[in-house]
Amino acid sequence: MQIDTAWRLLFGGMERDPQGLSARVRGIIADAIETGLLAPDMRVPSSRSLAEALGISRNTVNAAYQHLIDDGLLVARERSGCFVAATEGRTAVEEGPDDWAARFAIRPSRMPQITKPRNWTDYPYPFLFGQFDPGLFPTNPWRESVKAASSVQEITRWARDMIDDDDPDLLDQLCHKVLPRRGIFAGPGEIIITIGSQHALSMLVQLLVGRDTPVGIENPGYPDVRHMVGMATADMRALTCDTYGVVPDGVFASRRVAFVTVGHQCPTTAVMPVGRRRELLDAASRHGVVLVEDDYESDLSVEGDADLPCLKSLDRANRVIYTGSFSKVLAPGLRIGYVVAPKPVVDELRVLRRLMLRHPPTNNQRSLATFIQLGHYRQHLRRTATVLQERAERIAELLPELLPGCRFRRDFGAKSFWIEGPPGLDSRDLVRAARDLGVLIEAGDIFFVDPAESRDLVRAARDLGVLIEAGDIFFVDPAEGRRHFRLGFTSIATHRIEPGLRRLGSLLRSGPA
Amino acid sequence: MQIDTAWRLLFGGMERDPQGLSARVRGIIADAIETGLLAPDMRVPSSRSLAEALGISRNTVNAAYQHLIDDGLLVARERSGCFVAATEGRTAVEEGPDDWAARFAIRPSRMPQITKPRNWTDYPYPFLFGQFDPGLFPTNPWRESVKAASSVQEITRWARDMIDDDDPDLLDQLCHKVLPRRGIFAGPGEIIITIGSQHALSMLVQLLVGRDTPVGIENPGYPDVRHMVGMATADMRALTCDTYGVVPDGVFASRRVAFVTVGHQCPTTAVMPVGRRRELLDAASRHGVVLVEDDYESDLSVEGDADLPCLKSLDRANRVIYTGSFSKVLAPGLRIGYVVAPKPVVDELRVLRRLMLRHPPTNNQRSLATFIQLGHYRQHLRRTATVLQERAERIAELLPELLPGCRFRRDFGAKSFWIEGPPGLDSRDLVRAARDLGVLIEAGDIFFVDPAESRDLVRAARDLGVLIEAGDIFFVDPAEGRRHFRLGFTSIATHRIEPGLRRLGSLLRSGPA
Repeated sequence: MQIDTAWRLLFGGMERDPQGLSARVRGIIADAIETGLLAPDMRVPSSRSLAEALGISRNTVNAAYQHLIDDGLLVARERSGCFVAATEGRTAVEEGPDDWAARFAIRPSRMPQITKPRNWTDYPYPFLFGQFDPGLFPTNPWRESVKAASSVQEITRWARDMIDDDDPDLLDQLCHKVLPRRGIFAGPGEIIITIGSQHALSMLVQLLVGRDTPVGIENPGYPDVRHMVGMATADMRALTCDTYGVVPDGVFASRRVAFVTVGHQCPTTAVMPVGRRRELLDAASRHGVVLVEDDYESDLSVEGDADLPCLKSLDRANRVIYTGSFSKVLAPGLRIGYVVAPKPVVDELRVLRRLMLRHPPTNNQRSLATFIQLGHYRQHLRRTATVLQERAERIAELLPELLPGCRFRRDFGAKSFWIEGPPGLDSRDLVRAARDLGVLIEAGDIFFVDPAESRDLVRAARDLGVLIEAGDIFFVDPAEGRRHFRLGFTSIATHRIEPGLRRLGSLLRSGPA
Repeated sequence: MQIDTAWRLLFGGMERDPQGLSARVRGIIADAIETGLLAPDMRVPSSRSLAEALGISRNTVNAAYQHLIDDGLLVARERSGCFVAATEGRTAVEEGPDDWAARFAIRPSRMPQITKPRNWTDYPYPFLFGQFDPGLFPTNPWRESVKAASSVQEITRWARDMIDDDDPDLLDQLCHKVLPRRGIFAGPGEIIITIGSQHALSMLVQLLVGRDTPVGIENPGYPDVRHMVGMATADMRALTCDTYGVVPDGVFASRRVAFVTVGHQCPTTAVMPVGRRRELLDAASRHGVVLVEDDYESDLSVEGDADLPCLKSLDRANRVIYTGSFSKVLAPGLRIGYVVAPKPVVDELRVLRRLMLRHPPTNNQRSLATFIQLGHYRQHLRRTATVLQERAERIAELLPELLPGCRFRRDFGAKSFWIEGPPGLDSRDLVRAARDLGVLIEAGDIFFVDPAESRDLVRAARDLGVLIEAGDIFFVDPAEGRRHFRLGFTSIATHRIEPGLRRLGSLLRSGPA
């Protein structure tokens, strides 16, 4: 019987000394456990296979193991063998003589992050945005599509290295069945598949944003775009926004690239009226601004098919780069998104993507293409919209009664409510208190740039060799953000809405601790 | 019946003019086709649905369509409707008033690339490296694993947004079943899953390589590492290499980060002896060099289990960051790789990955975890190694007879041969001539930096605001690279080897082209 290379290596220096062999085996294993080389809960080889590999007797190994068990370093589990014990407070792995922090060219961990409890499914009232409702997933149609993509012939198509290509059928389904719903006519050469829209945005930042590129972002806005842009350029500014979204004013005109969410502004849910959309496009065309339209809720409009035309569909000057995703519609775990852009942009993105990661997994591309082609996608959209509409109506009905003193906004088709709490509310406290009652909501402060973050951005810029002042970036009252919170309803079952809101309301009335 | 938003938009400006309605419909569609807004082969709505949507009679639409068919702009296909005709030489989409090229912060498309024919499976003799042999894919075990990952309970686990997490079962299988084969003991906190090892390398470049970081690469070496590093730093140097791989000399000592392939050097297949591995680690430790070990052929050693211990397994100073992948072993299309590194590095990579793309698709992570856990992985490795060993032996046996005048290298366990042709050979000509005979091989020049590429790197560095001279980077005789070519055998059926090599040999004897 064979044992792993690792175990042979571990005993590589052991000489043949019949007297102290058992003690030696014990010592080597004990050392490896103490230094963390052998991790807790790792299974050790059977005494038979270790004995064979080392050319010693099984009794010698057994004696060593028994000693280690007595010492509490190993545990024996019935019928499954010996494992490294999970002792608390064991010495951690040594981290090398020097400080890793000094090795990093960038420090992504310094960025503030949206934090949602990892175990959110364990909470009875998850009013989260963008997460997944197991009850809405089209299990059988998806299985059918996966099965179809698992025939010998299909495997031959997807298992190979596509280098920089995408699955042609998925591109085809996007061109003919998905994008036309949004008003977009595009050929396959104007589309590239991404690992969700996060990947789309990060590639576009890499491609379009140099160290001094003037870039505009929304404030409040999607924090990750702010972070990505902030790591790439020293000239990021907040675009002026009013109740309809971005205003095409002088700030906008001064930018080379602007990241916008006009379908439903993130996080306010503002739907930009068509007139404003045309003004924005005109201004972009006049001043040479590239618009990156993040249509993160693409396709799944709660109220059905009546969405306004997206910027991309109105664009006649080829100024708009469009990003969409199947994460919100189908399942975030699948990680499939796309960029629709003029061909020269897509051509560069293909090479960039090849260098970054080659291509999104092709088996998932094929399953999704089949899913759309079989008509499951349209059916799933209809079914999901019906359920979400019910939830939206229920929440809208209950909010005035259960959350008095708050102002609510949810524009047509949006999948969350943006709520301004009473004066003086710090929604971070509310989030914590609500969580203790089983209710998950999202604090609003993360969407606003606050002064501390400005300082982080300055530091990040300095890492890039650029010196800027914190005050140059944003002037925002931090208290403004803290009054807000977001209430999503894609993951909460309809019958949980009322009890969840009642708990939230009781906290708001009593004032959160 | 509904039609897409796109079609409603298209006709948005059409006034109600009963006289010229048909001509108007025709004009709008003809315009949209001429300007490329409607792409060739796109299906147009049925006359019934367009008529309903516009509130006009079906005859009006039919007359317009018939006219467009007569003009050759549409084609009618029996029982499937009308489509935009695929006319050659039609005006391309206008690309906007300004030049996209001026918009790009980086120009990935300027990098030279490994090019393999996309339709390589159509060639009878594909001696390619790193591609996929449909005959070796474990179809039934993979299907079983995918099916297991498609239960309602499993879907609930993978369909959610994991934010920056990975599937815990896959991490577990890596810790306990995969990495120990390579001599690596690691805890789950020291591993992160990536979209293949390409993604692993690109994240490490982003994290570790700033604008002036001294980085060492192999020459000849994997071109994409050269490109990624070249885009990130102005201080890239070729490490000294001899027949055993990288030499730990003064150049090595001057680097902060070194990218190495010690298992099988890419492309020479050199296996670095254990003594040299230890010298490299000692030098890295003394001089503070971080070693990135790209173990791209990890696990699948053609001659079985007897691989030498990888750098990571010998590393006691925590100097080594290890990247591995299931692409070569299982299927490149799945895009699953991983990084094993000290925890501070993995912690930063998790945040960076979250910003870049969140996480690799979780359904594939779960399927793979199940595949390993059910024992299919070990079985697949054994089965594949047997077949590949047979192919390697067959090629080794035939080469001296069929390719006289060439020098061959294939170190123990490697999955390709590295071949030096006769003096004066330009392998790019050989590649073209061989392709005409149905034989695919890879030219060697791409693995070497040539003077033209040095100039590209200088230009790329200038885009980053750094001025360097081409001569500073590499001094290589371009003719050296052109004499070489690579012969892979993972995609060619055993019985095709001899006829393929015979054709190649006849070309070499007659002189290509």
